[in-house]
Amino acid sequence: MPDIGQLSINAATLRKQWKLEDIVAGVAQMGIRGISPWRDQVAQAGLAPIAQRIRDAGLEVSGYCRGGMFTATERAGRAAARDDNRRAVDEALELGARCLLLVAGGLSRDRDGHVASKDIAGAREMVRDGIGELLDYARPAGMPLAIEPQHPMYAADRACVNTLAHANDLCDELAPRGGDGLGVAVDIYHVWWDPRLKAEIERAGAAERLFAYQICDWLVPTRDLLTDRGMMGDGVVDLPLVRSWMEGAGYRGLHEVEILSERWWAEDAQHVLATCIERHATRT
Amino acid sequence: MPDIGQLSINAATLRKQWKLEDIVAGVAQMGIRGISPWRDQVAQAGLAPIAQRIRDAGLEVSGYCRGGMFTATERAGRAAARDDNRRAVDEALELGARCLLLVAGGLSRDRDGHVASKDIAGAREMVRDGIGELLDYARPAGMPLAIEPQHPMYAADRACVNTLAHANDLCDELAPRGGDGLGVAVDIYHVWWDPRLKAEIERAGAAERLFAYQICDWLVPTRDLLTDRGMMGDGVVDLPLVRSWMEGAGYRGLHEVEILSERWWAEDAQHVLATCIERHATRT
Repeated sequence: MPDIGQLSINAATLRKQWKLEDIVAGVAQMGIRGISPWRDQVAQAGLAPIAQRIRDAGLEVSGYCRGGMFTATERAGRAAARDDNRRAVDEALELGARCLLLVAGGLSRDRDGHVASKDIAGAREMVRDGIGELLDYARPAGMPLAIEPQHPMYAADRACVNTLAHANDLCDELAPRGGDGLGVAVDIYHVWWDPRLKAEIERAGAAERLFAYQICDWLVPTRDLLTDRGMMGDGVVDLPLVRSWMEGAGYRGLHEVEILSERWWAEDAQHVLATCIERHATRT
Repeated sequence: MPDIGQLSINAATLRKQWKLEDIVAGVAQMGIRGISPWRDQVAQAGLAPIAQRIRDAGLEVSGYCRGGMFTATERAGRAAARDDNRRAVDEALELGARCLLLVAGGLSRDRDGHVASKDIAGAREMVRDGIGELLDYARPAGMPLAIEPQHPMYAADRACVNTLAHANDLCDELAPRGGDGLGVAVDIYHVWWDPRLKAEIERAGAAERLFAYQICDWLVPTRDLLTDRGMMGDGVVDLPLVRSWMEGAGYRGLHEVEILSERWWAEDAQHVLATCIERHATRT
């Protein structure tokens, strides 16, 4: 019987096979302890009923995906992001989530949604300001925010925070006391390549900022920038080593499997869950 | 008449349209000052005859692509890389190249060429040792080596040196006096996203280590990890800004256009060259 004590399933992993209600039921039935839903899935299921289902199933919510996307060329766009992020905080509270994950947003987009700026330093300033403003809302409400650095290949169109060092710097600037409602999410897929990974995990741990840990694997070759992430053990990341760094830095939370993959979306959902359980126990 | 004084063409940009002999002739005919050939192209053309053609055409060789690939699980594989890299140095000398570009190699491969290790820290040690050993050969011969950090999306299968900071660190360790036969190549495509880019360009410049500058653009969306690089001006990189950083740090060398792109490989070669000239003058 594999040890599944710290396993959580990010609901994007099964988004093409099952509705969120089915994912909640399926995850609970397998004895898995946690889940992490996405906002579009929650909207489809209805916030109050799905929150009730998750509670009834006894599942922890290891994180809520996601807030962020702070960048826009126009003030109205940034104001819309602010309002939407506050709603995300409210939803995360009702779901009892451990934290709200923040994906920063890439280069600024215009009102039609097109990337309309080459000013990446300016985008990074918008992100800093946006997180600071959201923190003023989320901290008194009691919802921790977790900045998730994304792989540099997403810098233009998804997130201009691309290293754990940058996320830690933002935490130092915006919540200097440490652990004070602002932290980081470490997603293996985005940060595995970074020569400073161990040091920055230790830095985040020392400040009590390790709020979430997401796992999958990096495949060789990777055939698509978005939807070719690997099941743990199928790729090249030394997952036990990174887990040891997380634990050494004090992380005791869940290990959330997030696999965006056409290959795994084409599999039977029960089989995917069984594979996650086995691989989590043996390959991470 | 656009200013093409510092333009150089990396021969990979036209590799599907023309043989290297034709690229040399075409580049010279357009009044372009420099070229950067690849080893497979040189092998096909013959080293001595193509070196003569490049001299006769009056072209500078802004860099020779490429050495490196230092990582292998077996000692025999690393010895083969060492010998091959020495041949690359000899070829670069005969071509009169400004430098030999080094692409580090990714995770170690076995004798069949498959990635066979998850030890990225170990791969980075092999790279350090490999560059150090090659430097002992190249420095007395008079051929500068330029470490080219590659985008983190290539960390597993192409190069485990993924930031200019890492390349600068290697230079500090292996050639601490600065400018001493070991430097860096700044390729926009690989490093544009890095929040430390300006600082690390300045650091390299202060140590007289800016040996090469390669330009293209990052497209949104990017549809392929390898062959969807953009023509200058078609993407999201603030090329004039990065050029100003290079020049501010003392770089006076050529601006080498390297575009690996199915879209541009499908165009008429003369049209590609004319577009490079126009975009270099107006968009970089």
